[in-house]
Parts: sequence; C-alpha cells; structure tokens
Amino acid sequence: MSYRIEKDTMGEVQVPADKYWGAQTERSRNNFKIGPEASMPKEIIYAFAYLKKAAAIANHELGVLAADKKDLIAKVCDEILTGKLDSEFPLVIWQTGSGTQSNMNVNEVIAYRAHVMQGGKLTDDKKVLHPNDDVNKSQSSNDTFPTAMHIAAYKQVVDITLPGMKKLRDTLAKKSEAYKNIVKTGRTHFMDATPLTLGQEFSGYVQQIDNSMRAVKNALEVVRELALGGTAVGTGLNTPKGYDVLVAKKIAELTSLPFVTAPNKFEALAAHDAMVELSGALKRSAVSLMKIANDIRMLSSGPRCGIGEIVIPDNEPGSSIMPGKVNPTQPEALTMVCAQVIGNDVAVSIGGSTGHFELNVFKPVIAANVLQSARLIGDACVSFNDKCAEGIEPNEPVIKQHLENSLMLVTALNTHIGYENAAKIAKKAHKENKTLREAAVELGLLTSEQFDQWVRPENMVGSL
Amino acid sequence: MSYRIEKDTMGEVQVPADKYWGAQTERSRNNFKIGPEASMPKEIIYAFAYLKKAAAIANHELGVLAADKKDLIAKVCDEILTGKLDSEFPLVIWQTGSGTQSNMNVNEVIAYRAHVMQGGKLTDDKKVLHPNDDVNKSQSSNDTFPTAMHIAAYKQVVDITLPGMKKLRDTLAKKSEAYKNIVKTGRTHFMDATPLTLGQEFSGYVQQIDNSMRAVKNALEVVRELALGGTAVGTGLNTPKGYDVLVAKKIAELTSLPFVTAPNKFEALAAHDAMVELSGALKRSAVSLMKIANDIRMLSSGPRCGIGEIVIPDNEPGSSIMPGKVNPTQPEALTMVCAQVIGNDVAVSIGGSTGHFELNVFKPVIAANVLQSARLIGDACVSFNDKCAEGIEPNEPVIKQHLENSLMLVTALNTHIGYENAAKIAKKAHKENKTLREAAVELGLLTSEQFDQWVRPENMVGSL
Amino acid sequence: MSYRIEKDTMGEVQVPADKYWGAQTERSRNNFKIGPEASMPKEIIYAFAYLKKAAAIANHELGVLAADKKDLIAKVCDEILTGKLDSEFPLVIWQTGSGTQSNMNVNEVIAYRAHVMQGGKLTDDKKVLHPNDDVNKSQSSNDTFPTAMHIAAYKQVVDITLPGMKKLRDTLAKKSEAYKNIVKTGRTHFMDATPLTLGQEFSGYVQQIDNSMRAVKNALEVVRELALGGTAVGTGLNTPKGYDVLVAKKIAELTSLPFVTAPNKFEALAAHDAMVELSGALKRSAVSLMKIANDIRMLSSGPRCGIGEIVIPDNEPGSSIMPGKVNPTQPEALTMVCAQVIGNDVAVSIGGSTGHFELNVFKPVIAANVLQSARLIGDACVSFNDKCAEGIEPNEPVIKQHLENSLMLVTALNTHIGYENAAKIAKKAHKENKTLREAAVELGLLTSEQFDQWVRPENMVGSL
Amino acid sequence: MSYRIEKDTMGEVQVPADKYWGAQTERSRNNFKIGPEASMPKEIIYAFAYLKKAAAIANHELGVLAADKKDLIAKVCDEILTGKLDSEFPLVIWQTGSGTQSNMNVNEVIAYRAHVMQGGKLTDDKKVLHPNDDVNKSQSSNDTFPTAMHIAAYKQVVDITLPGMKKLRDTLAKKSEAYKNIVKTGRTHFMDATPLTLGQEFSGYVQQIDNSMRAVKNALEVVRELALGGTAVGTGLNTPKGYDVLVAKKIAELTSLPFVTAPNKFEALAAHDAMVELSGALKRSAVSLMKIANDIRMLSSGPRCGIGEIVIPDNEPGSSIMPGKVNPTQPEALTMVCAQVIGNDVAVSIGGSTGHFELNVFKPVIAANVLQSARLIGDACVSFNDKCAEGIEPNEPVIKQHLENSLMLVTALNTHIGYENAAKIAKKAHKENKTLREAAVELGLLTSEQFDQWVRPENMVGSL
Repeated sequence: MSYRIEKDTMGEVQVPADKYWGAQTERSRNNFKIGPEASMPKEIIYAFAYLKKAAAIANHELGVLAADKKDLIAKVCDEILTGKLDSEFPLVIWQTGSGTQSNMNVNEVIAYRAHVMQGGKLTDDKKVLHPNDDVNKSQSSNDTFPTAMHIAAYKQVVDITLPGMKKLRDTLAKKSEAYKNIVKTGRTHFMDATPLTLGQEFSGYVQQIDNSMRAVKNALEVVRELALGGTAVGTGLNTPKGYDVLVAKKIAELTSLPFVTAPNKFEALAAHDAMVELSGALKRSAVSLMKIANDIRMLSSGPRCGIGEIVIPDNEPGSSIMPGKVNPTQPEALTMVCAQVIGNDVAVSIGGSTGHFELNVFKPVIAANVLQSARLIGDACVSFNDKCAEGIEPNEPVIKQHLENSLMLVTALNTHIGYENAAKIAKKAHKENKTLREAAVELGLLTSEQFDQWVRPENMVGSL
Repeated sequence: MSYRIEKDTMGEVQVPADKYWGAQTERSRNNFKIGPEASMPKEIIYAFAYLKKAAAIANHELGVLAADKKDLIAKVCDEILTGKLDSEFPLVIWQTGSGTQSNMNVNEVIAYRAHVMQGGKLTDDKKVLHPNDDVNKSQSSNDTFPTAMHIAAYKQVVDITLPGMKKLRDTLAKKSEAYKNIVKTGRTHFMDATPLTLGQEFSGYVQQIDNSMRAVKNALEVVRELALGGTAVGTGLNTPKGYDVLVAKKIAELTSLPFVTAPNKFEALAAHDAMVELSGALKRSAVSLMKIANDIRMLSSGPRCGIGEIVIPDNEPGSSIMPGKVNPTQPEALTMVCAQVIGNDVAVSIGGSTGHFELNVFKPVIAANVLQSARLIGDACVSFNDKCAEGIEPNEPVIKQHLENSLMLVTALNTHIGYENAAKIAKKAHKENKTLREAAVELGLLTSEQFDQWVRPENMVGSL
Repeated sequence: MSYRIEKDTMGEVQVPADKYWGAQTERSRNNFKIGPEASMPKEIIYAFAYLKKAAAIANHELGVLAADKKDLIAKVCDEILTGKLDSEFPLVIWQTGSGTQSNMNVNEVIAYRAHVMQGGKLTDDKKVLHPNDDVNKSQSSNDTFPTAMHIAAYKQVVDITLPGMKKLRDTLAKKSEAYKNIVKTGRTHFMDATPLTLGQEFSGYVQQIDNSMRAVKNALEVVRELALGGTAVGTGLNTPKGYDVLVAKKIAELTSLPFVTAPNKFEALAAHDAMVELSGALKRSAVSLMKIANDIRMLSSGPRCGIGEIVIPDNEPGSSIMPGKVNPTQPEALTMVCAQVIGNDVAVSIGGSTGHFELNVFKPVIAANVLQSARLIGDACVSFNDKCAEGIEPNEPVIKQHLENSLMLVTALNTHIGYENAAKIAKKAHKENKTLREAAVELGLLTSEQFDQWVRPENMVGSL
Repeated sequence: MSYRIEKDTMGEVQVPADKYWGAQTERSRNNFKIGPEASMPKEIIYAFAYLKKAAAIANHELGVLAADKKDLIAKVCDEILTGKLDSEFPLVIWQTGSGTQSNMNVNEVIAYRAHVMQGGKLTDDKKVLHPNDDVNKSQSSNDTFPTAMHIAAYKQVVDITLPGMKKLRDTLAKKSEAYKNIVKTGRTHFMDATPLTLGQEFSGYVQQIDNSMRAVKNALEVVRELALGGTAVGTGLNTPKGYDVLVAKKIAELTSLPFVTAPNKFEALAAHDAMVELSGALKRSAVSLMKIANDIRMLSSGPRCGIGEIVIPDNEPGSSIMPGKVNPTQPEALTMVCAQVIGNDVAVSIGGSTGHFELNVFKPVIAANVLQSARLIGDACVSFNDKCAEGIEPNEPVIKQHLENSLMLVTALNTHIGYENAAKIAKKAHKENKTLREAAVELGLLTSEQFDQWVRPENMVGSL
C-alpha cells in the first residue's frame, strides 16, 4: 500500500495515499484496533453529513463562512449521503468517548474530498478547506457528536422502528377484529381459566404495541433537541450569535424532521439522558414484544403434543435431523432481538450514568446500542409481521375442544350458587375426570337445564 | 401459640387464634418461607384498602351489594389505612405471581375484622361477610392486584418521588442562579477545558432533573389506568354493567388521584408494561442523579489533593481510623440508590417480559421493585438535598487558581490566529510549564496586549 | 423520648437515652432517612460481631490490647450473635458507601454495652472501652466492612444457598432415577420432537444445579479472602506485625469457615470483585433455576387444555374468582426470585465497577444485594423442593397419548429411508391428520411391519 | 443476478447461481432481514468447520461414513478455515433460535462445494454429498450449534481474551514493581487519605486482573464440554455407539484445545449455562477493568486543574476546538467496552434463562454476545496496554506536593495521642489552612520533634 504524509498538531502521520481521511483519522485507526473495523454506525456518519452541511449554511448566513466554502462543504455532504464515500470512514465505536476522531474523520474527508473535487491533489500542502477552521467552524466534537447521535437515532426510529411496530400492530388489529367471535379457553398461570375470544386475546397485543409506540414517541420529544451550538463545554464559545437556533432549523429543513436547539447545552453535552430515555422506551417495547412473541410461539405449539390453538406459517424445514418438523422461527428471532435490546439498555444506562463534569464520554457506545436496538426492533417487527403474524390462522377444532373441556367454565356459576359450591363441582369433575355438568348434577347443586342456561362460554366473554 | 380452625375450598387450616386472616393467607404463609416475613410492600396493602372500599361502593351503587355490607367493608378499609392492622398482613413478595393470596389476605381480614367489629367472634362458623362472595365481589386477584400495583405506584411517585426530585431540583436551580457569575475551568474527558460558570454547570443538573420528572410524569399517564373490572381474564366476567368505569371513578375520588379504567383489560392483566415504563423512567432518573452526585462528589474532592472547587457539609466523622476526615457521604448514598434502581429495572423488565397468555405472574416482584425504586429516589433526593445540596458552597480561591492555570483558555485565540497556532502555544506552555501568555509572546504569535484583550475567561462563557 | 448527650470528634449529639449506640450512629441515623429503617442486613452486623471479637483476640495475642478489654469485647460480640441486641443497629443500607457508620455502630454498641455490663451507666463520661481506640483497634471501616461482607456472604451461601440448592438437586435426582423408564415426547422450539425419558429430562435439571453449585463454590474461593489488616488504604497502617494473618485465622476459628487473609489488601478495599463474582455465580444459578421452574410450570399446565405431563401438588386455592383452580405457585415464586437475582447482579456490577482509587464506596449496596440473592435462592429452592418438587408425579396417560401422537417418531426412519423420505411421511401425516404408520404405508416407503420394527420410542431414547 | 433452483423438503427455492449455499440457507436469508447481513459471527462458522470435519472422521472411524466422503468433507472444512469461503455464509444472528439454518448453511456449502471440487456443477441434480444424510450425519442442529458455540467461545477466550488481559496484567505488574518506592497520598471516598506507594496502588490492579483471569478459566472448565452426540433432544438418536466421546476427541485434536464430551447432553442442549457462566466471568472482568481504567483516567487528569499524579501518552489531538488538548482516550475506549460487556451479560442471562424443555432457542444471541464480549475485552486490553499502560509515567513533583499537603498523615499519630486528639489537629489545620505540624504544636499535643519522628509517610505504607 502506498502512503502520503498528513499532519496535525501532533506531527506527521502516514495515511493510505488514496484515502480522503487525514492525520487524526489515521491516528485513531491505528490506536484503536478493537473489534471489527469501521464499526462506528454509518447512521452516525450520515447524520454528521446533515449537520456539517447545516453548520456551513448557518455559518454562511451568519457571515462567518464564505459562500464558496459553504457550497463545497454542502456538496461533499450530499455525496456522503449517497453512500459513495462509505469506505472513507474506517473508525470504530471503541475510540475516544467523545467521538472526536469520528468528527475529525468527517471534517477531514469533507475538506480533502472538496479539494479533489476542485481539481486539487491529496498531496497538496494547502487545501481549499481546513478541517478545523472551516468544516468544523462554530463546532466542537462535544456538540457535534451528540447532535449526530440525536439525528441518527431520531431518523432510525421514524424510518425503521415505528413503521415496523405499526405494521405489526395493524396486522394484529386486523386479526383481533377477524377473530372477535372465536371463543376459546383463557389461560392464567399457564393454567386453564375462564373463556375469552381469540380477538380479545389479540386486542391485548395491539394495546401493548400502541402503548409502546406512544412511549417511543414521548422519548423522541427530547431526542429532537440538539446540542449543536454548545461547542466545547456548552457555553457556545466561538459561535456567532443566533447560531444554535439557526443551525437546528437548518438541520430540521435538511432532514424534514422537527429538530430544535436544546434548551440547555450543558445538559446536552454532559449527559445523554435523552438517548437513555429512548433506549428505555425501546426496552419497554422489547418487553411488550417478548410477551407477544412468546404467546404466539406457545399458542402454535404442537402440532400434536402442545397447545396448538393457532397455526403459523411454515417457513423453513425446522430440523436438520427431524424430518417434517416446523418451528416458530419468527417468534424466536423476535425474542432474541428483545433479549438484546434489554441488554443494550443496560449498557446505555451505564454509559449514560458515568459522564463527568462537562462531558459524557460514553457517546459512541450509547449511540451504537440505541441505533442497534432501534433497527432490530423495526426490522424484527416487519419480519415477524410478514413471515408470521399475517399468516396466523386459528385452529378452530383444537380451540373448540379445549374450550369444552375447560373446568373453569364453572366460574359462571359463582353468582348463582356461590364460589364454594362452584369449587366443589370443579374439583369433583377434575378428580373423577368428568364433565362439569355431570359433576354439578351428581352433587345436586343444580339441574342439567340450569347448567345449560348458566354455563355458556359465549356469555362469559363480556363486551369489553 | 393458640390456633383456631379456618376453612377454604381445599379444607381446614390452623390459623393463629388472634389473627384476622383466614385459611388462604395461612396456607401462603406456610408455603412460602422465602426471605424475611411480611415483605409484601405495605403500600400494596393500603392500595388494596382503597380498591376494596371503592369496589364495595360501586357494587352497592350498581345494586349487587347491600348497604350494610358496603359500610362494613368501607369501615375496615379505613382502619387498614390507619396502619393499625399492619400486622395482619404477613405474606411475602415471593408467593404466587398473581398475588392471589395477598388479595385473599385483604379479603379475609376485611371479612373477619368486620365480623368482630359487629360483635362476632373469629371462631364463629358463619361471618357477616364472605371473603370471596362479598369482599371480592366483582373482582378477581387478576384485576385487583394490578390495580393495587398502579394505585400504590402512582401514590408513591406523587407523594415521594416527584416531591423529592423537585426539592433537589429547586435547590440546584437556586445555586445555579447564585453562582451564575463564578467563572471556573470546564472539564471534558476529566481534563481541563474552556471555562464556564459554576451556575451554568449547575443549570445542566437542573435540566437533567426537569427532564427526568417529565419522563416520570409521562409514565404516570399509563399507570393511572386501572385493570379493575377485567376480573379473571379481562372479559369482566361476573361484574355488573358499568362497573369498571364506576369503580375507577370511586378510586379516583378516594385517593384524589386521576385514575381511570384501562382501555383494554386484556393488556392490563397479561402485561405490566405500564409498570415497566415507570420503572424505566425511574431508571432514567437514576442515570441523571448518578451523574449529578458523581460531579458533586468529585468537585468537592480533596481537601488538599483533589479538585476542591466546592465545599459540601461535613455530616459525620469520615473514618474510624483517619482522624478529621470528612467524606461525601450523601453523594455516596445517592449513587448507591441509583445503582439499585438500575438493577431493579432489569428485574422488572424480566418480570414484565415473561407473562403468558391472559396473565403476567411476576406481579409481586414487579410491584416491589418499582415501589422500592420510587421510594429510594424520592427519599435519597430529599436526603441529598437537605444534608448536602443546600449546604454546597463554592471554594472561590481554588476555582480562581484552576481557572488561571488552565491551558484551555487558549481556545479563545482560535478565531484570531487559527487552531494550529493556538495549539502551538498550549503545547509550549504545557511542555515548558509556562503561562499561556509567556508561551504566546515567546512564539511571537501575538503581543501581550492582544493576549489580555483576547483571552478573557469571563468573555468565554457565552450567554447560553 | 428521653435523650442523653454523646460526643464524637464533630461535637455533641442527642441520642435516645436507652440505646447503646453513640454519636456517630445517631448522626448517620438522622442524616440518612432513605427507605425503611434499619435496612442494613443483620447478617452484616453478626459478621461484624465475629470480626470484632477476632480482632480483639488477635490484638491481645499481639500485645496491643489488654486481656480484660479483649474479654469485654468478646462478651458483647457473643451477645450480639444471640440476636438480643438487634434493635441497637438502626442504620440503613443507604448511608456512606464505606459503611463507616455501621462499623462505628458496632464499635459504639460494643463499647457502651460493655460499660453497662461492667456496671457503668450510659451517661458516664468515661467508659471502659473506647469505640475507636479499643474496639476498632488495628482496624478501619475500610477493611472491616469488606471483611464483614465476606463473612456474611460466605456464611449465607454455605448456610442457606448451597443447602437449598442441594436439597432440590437431590429431589430432582431421585425423580430422574424414578422416571428413567417413562418414555415421553421431547419438545424443541416448544414443538413436538423425538422422544426421551422423563428421567432424562430431569437429569438435565440435576446437571444444571450441579454446575451452578460448582460455580458458586468457585466464587467462594475468593470470598474467603479477608481484607482485615489493610486498615485505611490497604497498607496495614496501625496494625501490629502478623495481625492480618492472625485475625483471619481467628475469624476462621470462630466461624468454622476457611477464611484466610487476602493476598493483596489494596485490591480487597478498592474493589469488591469477589462479591461481584459471587453475585455472578448466584445469577448463573438463577438462570438455571428459571429454566427448571419454567419447565415444571409448563409440563404441569392444564389440567385439560395444556401440556399436563406431570402433576404438581395443589397448595392453595388458585383463584379468588375461578373455583377449583390450582396454580403452579412454587414455580412462580422461584422464577420471581430468579428475576430479582438477575436484577440484583446488575446493581452489584455497577457498584463493583465504580470504585475509585483506594476504596470502593458501594459496599452496603453490594452487600445487601448479594446477601438477598443468596438468601432468596436458598429459601426458594427449599420452598420449591418441599412444596412442589417432592410431590411431582408423572401423568402417565397424558404422557403416553402425546408420545403416540408425536410425528417426530419419524426420525427413527432417517437411517433406513433417508431424511427426505421420512419428511414426506411426516408431512403427509400432519396434513391429512393420519398416523405415521398410515402415511408411511400409503406412500409405499415401507411396510407396516418395518414401521413397527423401526419406530419404537423406547429404542429412541439412547443410553446417554 | 442469475439464479439456480434448489430443493429441500419444503419445495423449490431460487438461489444465486454462483453461491454454494442451498435451499435452506436461502430460505433463512429471505425470511430474516433483520439488522445487517451476514451478522452470524464468523467464529461460529469456523467452529462448525472444525466440528463437521471431526464428525466426518468420527463417523468414518465408526464405520458409518465412507472414506471418500470423509475426505471430501474434511477438504472443504479446511478451505472454510482459510477464510476463502466467508462470503458463502450470509445468514444473520436473528434467525431461528436453534441456529438450524446456520448449521444447514454449513452442510449445504460443504456438500455443494465438495461437488464442485470433484468437477461437478452446482446445477447437477445429484451431488456427491447430501447436506443432511452425509455432512450432518450423526448430528442435529441441536447439538452442533451448541458445540460450535463452545468451540468458538473457548478459542476466542484463549486466543484473544486471556492473552490480552495477561499482557495488560504484566505491564501493570512491571509498573507496580518500578513504582514500589514512590510514596503518594491515598484517596478514599475520592478524598485525601493515608499514604501508600504508587506501586501498591498498581498492585491492586494486578490482583484484579489475576482474579479475573482465574474466573474466566474456571468458566472454561464447563465451556470445554461439548454437546455433540446428543443430536435432536440429547438422547443421541441416530449416532453410532461411542460417537460422542470420539467426536469430542477429534475436535480436541483438530483445535489443540482440551474439549471433552458433555457429561449430560440434555443439559447441554436445553441450557447454555456454560455460556452464561463465561459471560458472567467476562462481565466480572469488565467490572475490574472499569475500575482500573477509571483510576488511570482520574490519576492522569489535568494537566493543571486535576489530580495529575501520572502522565499517560498523548495519542491524538484531544479536541476539534480546544487546541493542544489531550485526553485519556484509551481508558475511555476500555470503559465503553466494559459497559458493553455488562450489558451483553444481561442479554445472555435472559437468553439463557428462557429455554424450554429439550432446547434453548436463544443460541445465536447468546453466542454473538459472548463472542463480542470476549473479543472486545481482549482487544481493548491490548490497545489500552500498548497505547496507554506501557507509557504511564509518575508525575513525581505533583505526587510529592499532594503527599506533603495531605492532612491524613495525622493518622500516624493515633497510636501515640489517640484518635480524638489526632482529629483535633487535622481539623485545626484544615480550618486554619495550616500544616499538620503547625496545628499539632499550637495545640500543645506534641512537639515538633515528635511530629517529625512519628509522621513519616514512608513509614506509613507498611510492608503488605
């Protein structure tokens, strides 16, 4: 590999000759060989492209950056957003906790790529843009990286997480409506209980996802606040007046998302509570989805020795040794995602809680975990929806058989003969392996006719 | 100890002769000797008192419970709320996951205490109230226990958590205002950075707590929804028409809190996402408080070999061996509380995610952890406020000395001589242990007069 | 309440007149009103009693404490261990992170109780023992509290945790042996799979607990190392030569447990990795027990609409509304305990990871969580064992029916007709709701005789 | 893209024409578009290569696989291990929880690549090897995937984790020895405390890592046990006699690692407690490393307004806005890694605890997290070692200044004048901003000569 020499305030560094990045990126690349290469999420890089462009525009409008420099910066940012420069961002999550070198990576790539766009060479000593003085103007890593975190997270959530959850929610709502008259046995404590309809059961899932989406949206209300303009420690040192409000407005325009400047920049740099809160909302969603996926897995269990009240699509041969086996693979993937999201939330909480003074230096690990959680939940909901939920069908013969067998229909008798007498009937039926009717009549607690009149599963499912 | 015989549907049980509880309580007491006795939170018991009274009133208004029975139930509930019957609730958290026997404990105590109030004896075969048929009328453990969880958690949060956080927040806001002109060195990465005011530093803490309180309040929006009326599986079996709405209204009246009936009872029994969400909001608050407490601990470190920029009250001799030592004990207690709350959130998440079908059976562990977290945060904020935050004083000589020494004042020169030249000055000063002015002038990059004009800490703290 | 005046190095304090504690305890009691009173685990207090007695003996043997003082200290320690002085320890977990005031609480109670034992009065200005100079001689909170943590945790584990796990393990082993010939359908992915014996299934549980116990014992190897002798920062300042080894030996003798002095006192004060490791081993045990409890819960589900292959004891009426219902309450309690232990482990990890320099100041929260986890696992195993596991019985008719129905018996044909042909049989049987034999013969892939010869569940369970 | 048609028991599938994988891989690839492509760790694929080769050899030796087939399988496995076929493994973590399709991916690639090696074409209807009947012979996903998990994890730990920790441990031990005579102030509660040597401080870190490595090695004792031979449910169905022991031996030979067959295959499939235990040991190591990294970060803080007792290498410009700033970037990366590992452990625990019956179906998420944790800890230790720890130097002037200023030297007077008198001296010195000597003499508690004789920091660091 051939190299060129780049310089920063610490001296000279050899950089791969054809790469747009400069000295600081290369230092970080060499200093942090932890885990796979280039693990810094691409969503962060793209978010930086939005913010660098917005900063250039704001700087220009406020009279501190020339028009040609602004245009050049914007042009490279647009190119970054096409994905064409992806290989120019080689850094990892596990670098400095402020993400400084990822900010510099973007600054360097913009400055040097712009120079080349202008006809210059990477080996030219003087470039048309300076990474710090021009591209990073009115900025610090300390306010850009948090801003990039918020832009990336907000976008991920509205582009992937919420649409995925919504898609699944709508399918489950459709199923809930479709199955609203299928009466089935309830189960509490994993034990037979009083009946409900399959539609009612699914309506609980719909409510869970609705509430989860609401929680995620609540968290977005703080994620939309941007640190940009706080610069090094939150005071806004070296920014023109009005810059923070204007640059947030520009980012909002470029992304078509409702970003605003953070009301307190000290908090916005020193803490990442907004990301912690979003992570918590994603975790709460994972808790909901885990319940739903487990229910689907268990309701479809069998085919002959399980519960088997619903049938889900057969998507892959289920076993490399057991011929003909099919498994609830989508619920499995979803529950694994949920486990990951709950674990990620702990990593985020630890990172969020251990910032010191003016800066939290767990930014990359927080960003990476939140972005992964947001992506996984969205993707997994779509996968679960398309390959499983949409194909769910009730297994009516099994549902009917279970319903008729359930001893808990006896509950309908409470208001007629009292809890204790009803219990006698259930216990006798269970012990002697009889039907409730047989037990009831034998005990002389009611007549067969009364039984038929009072114990009607379809009357036990209420109107809730 | 002397005993009497009580019966339930499973047969006879020996119960301590003078206790108001009955057979089911006693069974659970004997079956679950796990951890200390009577660990079921008292807040849950009191919440049950509210709901049993509300249910009796609603049942009466809807014509299914006689006035005298209603009055009797209400009377015992009032007595429970005074705390006089605390010793009648001996059960533990680690019982059935539905809390069924804690519901029955309340039912039994109400029924039997009422009987005694009426002049009856505990050994009477027939009592004035039946635990199931009267006290538990229109109810199931499956909807009462979640309702009690929500009542208890909501109350804990508005009685203890939020006032505690508010108190601390207000003190910090007062300090922030008082110290708004004390310029000090910033610290990022635990390293010297550009200046800010002590008031600005504290303003970040205020914002953190404000945001935490907002998050907690958002969670309360779902906690105020009550499962009551869903009975066994969410269908509302064995409840009179209109009961769910009415009973929530009665609970709201009795507690003066804005409770409403849950829009979907299936979700309200089968999941405890509202509690998971509240736990997440408390965890998010713990993350904020951990940052604040750590900062206070570190800012006050020393007295002679630390950072020492603030002084906190000396509350206890700090060491059993080092005479005269004082320690930041309140920050320590608060950070321990935060660690606990973050851990509790994981327990709650696991419990919340593993409900099955119509019922989540991790109710007591969820309730206990959320209640503990809510209590600890509230109490610890008050303690930290009263014994530490209120007494914080700036150590101005140390602040001034640090500020004057900080090499990062050089950042003010960026806009005058560029980042790279400024870096040369800082590096020279650091290496040769000189002042910035000396280094700047020696390097010939600016005059002493320019230095004085440009490098003014008080001009570097912005107006944010 | 009447008070007396006590003094410490910070001045005078009012103390309840009849209490043995002194000024420092009272300061902490007033300064930390967080959560319920007296929450500092009693196990820690008792562990202190062992170590104070051991220290007195060691100090005496090394010539720095007079025999009469040694005897007095030992006498009060013995009294503490009877539990009679429990109400003299009012402090909470949420105090200073070094537990200094709990150490002083013990020092004060020993000194003042000794004085009273000698016929003195609590109001006497001069007491026979000085809390710091005598009772705390050769000690610091910084080495005593960690030592108490280790003593308490080790005792809890060998007294409660391991015996509980062992009891359950032995019951499951007995069941495994008893059911070694009961062939049943296996289930993978919650779906029907090839057969195994019920005994084999239980043997997996036994192995899980065996491995868990091994992990816990491995952790004890570091818990047995004691910090005592390190005093304030690990250097052993103010201790007589040979003290650390001797005092550990004395503790070992008093407790009959294999305690030794820690090889590195700096680590023993500044980190609590041994406790973190023990917590991790308890968490690992919780993971095992969660799996076992879930299996038992699900295997016993029904009675008519679930899996129902085993029957577990009916311990309590299962529902306040559904008569005759019985629930797997012991598995529920155990799984709740497991959720708590997993959450506790996170609290412990956070506490363990955030010590600074010479001292970890999350000691009380670490201690409280580890002790709770150790207790809960032990107690819950005994409860689960006595009230559930011992009473487990196979439900052979259901087991037989499931086994005969299972399509996965087809796997036995792989080696005769290949995976793909076997799959055809299973799929046909499933689709057309036939038996495997019918499908096989109809497909012409084998004869009915071959089927009988090759598909024998009892030959499919191996000899593993 | 051009396609060919592949078949499995569910029918035909279009597969990219030039890829070696078959129908099942393609199904999974299409069914699980969750997160980035090909996220299944490569370490798992390589582990499969070892085990497939070992299985072929064992099958051959036991007479159930022909020599030519065995050789072909072995040849492709060797090729996989070179990394040349990496692009043939496109599946993700978030698939079926048994990893069945990743097992089939390996089976298909081996079978089809072998066919091509033999001169066949991918479009040939009949191939030289059958993925199930030959490559998967005597195997099931249910025993191969856990085996691959153990092989991959064990290798990762011995290749990366332990050497990384060892390297750092040795550097710290070297530093500990080098600095054994540098006396410095101790700090407890982040406050000045009695002195110790810098070498003693570092010795605590060495002990922490030693203990962490011991814990990791303890966990390897169960990770070395392999599930292979259990096949579908643990019974070993369809395996030749002696296979399980033999195949583990073959794997041990091929990897030069001490693998053995698991003593209980039911546990080895249904639980992944060994992985949970390893994750716990890695988490415990993260807890240790977090403490160490935080100490280094804080000890090196400044350069002028912090603690500044050590100097660490300057590796990158520390700020994009503050010229000349350098930051403790390696400690930051390491602490971020530790936060991740603690979070990962929760994901693993949840996955580990929720297996059902004969199979845990959280295998891929468990594997991915453990492998990431193992890699990150190893890599981060090396990075921290090479770029930070090795370059640590004491800042002796600062150390000396702090030591001389520390009021806690007064502790040396306890044994001469008692704790209370010593406290008076410290308090007076603190209040009046005097030296200890001045305060002591002014109080008349000792002479200046006595002070010099008794208060000698170098005599306060013991010999521990």
